[in-house]
Amino acid sequence: MNNESKKVSNEVIKRLPRYYRYLGELLKNNILRVSSKELSEKMNVTASQIRQDLNCFGGFGQQGYGYNVESLYKAIGEILGLYNGQKTIIIGAGYLGHALANYKSFENRGFKLIGIFDTSPDKIGKSLNNHEILSMENIKAFVDKNKPDIAILAVPKVAAPEVAQQLVNLGIKGLLNFCYTDILVPDDVSVENVHLSDSLMTLSYKIANKNKHI
Amino acid sequence: MNNESKKVSNEVIKRLPRYYRYLGELLKNNILRVSSKELSEKMNVTASQIRQDLNCFGGFGQQGYGYNVESLYKAIGEILGLYNGQKTIIIGAGYLGHALANYKSFENRGFKLIGIFDTSPDKIGKSLNNHEILSMENIKAFVDKNKPDIAILAVPKVAAPEVAQQLVNLGIKGLLNFCYTDILVPDDVSVENVHLSDSLMTLSYKIANKNKHI
Repeated sequence: MNNESKKVSNEVIKRLPRYYRYLGELLKNNILRVSSKELSEKMNVTASQIRQDLNCFGGFGQQGYGYNVESLYKAIGEILGLYNGQKTIIIGAGYLGHALANYKSFENRGFKLIGIFDTSPDKIGKSLNNHEILSMENIKAFVDKNKPDIAILAVPKVAAPEVAQQLVNLGIKGLLNFCYTDILVPDDVSVENVHLSDSLMTLSYKIANKNKHI
Repeated sequence: MNNESKKVSNEVIKRLPRYYRYLGELLKNNILRVSSKELSEKMNVTASQIRQDLNCFGGFGQQGYGYNVESLYKAIGEILGLYNGQKTIIIGAGYLGHALANYKSFENRGFKLIGIFDTSPDKIGKSLNNHEILSMENIKAFVDKNKPDIAILAVPKVAAPEVAQQLVNLGIKGLLNFCYTDILVPDDVSVENVHLSDSLMTLSYKIANKNKHI
C-alpha cells in the first residue's frame, strides 16, 4: 500500500471512519463482499467517490468482484491507526467526562481508557467506569509513567488553553477537544475538535436553507 | 443578498459557524473591522478561501477596508438562521443529556431549550437545568403544543432509529444526532450527526499519519 507519496485531504480522512463503521456492520451481518455501488447507496456517497477515496490508499477493489468486506475493514482500521491500541485519558469528570467514560464505542474501536482527571476535590478519588478519578496535580507523574497517546479535553472552556498547553508540554501528541474554543498546538501535535455549537449552527443553517445546499 | 440562486457546499456551511464564532470574539474585544488576511491567519484558512466562501452569499468585503465585523457577524448569524429562536428539545437525560442541558453556548447562540424527555421512571419528574424531565409518553402532546424546531438525540444507539422515526412523524424538521448510527429521514428533514467515535478515529489517523494529510 503506497500512502507515503501523496497527501490525503481532510475530506477523505473524515469519510474513512464512516467506511469503517459501515463495513463493520456488514461484517456483523456476515456479508462478505460488497460492490462500490452497494456501499455507495448505503453511505449516500457516489460510487466513483468511494473508488477515488480508496484509491488514495492504493485501492482495494477487484473489477467485477467488488470489495472483500473483511480485508477492506481491516485495511481501513490499519490506515486509521486503530490497531495501535491508543491509550487515552479524559481530562474533566463533569457530565461530559462521565458520558465519555461510559461511551462503549471507544473501547470497541481500539481506544483504551487509562485515566480520568479532574481538579475538583469533590470528584477526585471517586470511581467512574472502574477508574478512580485522579487529581490533575498528579498528571505529570501519570503521563511520564503511562505515556498516553490521546487526551480528551472535557474541561470548562476558560481552562482549555492552559490545560492543552500543559498536556502538550508533557508530550501528548493527540487532543480531542470538546471545549468551545480552537486550541493552538505545535505542528507535531494533532487536534480534532468537537464543537457542539458549530454542529447546532450547521443544522440551523440546513433547516433555514433546506434545498439550498448540496 | 442573493443566496437563492446557488447551492452552497457542505464545506462552506461547516466553516460558517467558525466565522461566526471568531467574529463574535472580535466583537467582544471591540475590534470593528478585519481584513480577510487577518481573519485568515486567525482561522487557518486562506484569505482567498474566505473571500470565496463569503461570496457564496453575496460577499460583504470592501476593497481596501476589509470587513465590518459587526455587520458580517450579524449577516452570518442570519444566514445560519440563528435569529429565528430555534426551539430545541433534548431526548435522553443520561450523562450526555445532562451535559447538553447545561451547555451554556446553546442559549448564547439563539437556541432555546424548551423540554427534556426520557423513558426512565428514575429520571422523569426530576429537575435538570430548571426543566422538569418529561416522559416520552407525553411527547406528542408537547410537540403539538410547543412546536419545537430541533430535537437533540442523546438516547442509546439501539433506541435511536425508532425515536428518530417518532420525532419525524410528529413533524420535527431538524435532528442533532449523537447516537452512533446514521439515521434515515425524509428529504424535508435535516440531520446533523455528532459521532464521537468518528472524531476519535480521525484523530487516530492524524496521529498515525502525521504530515501525510493536507
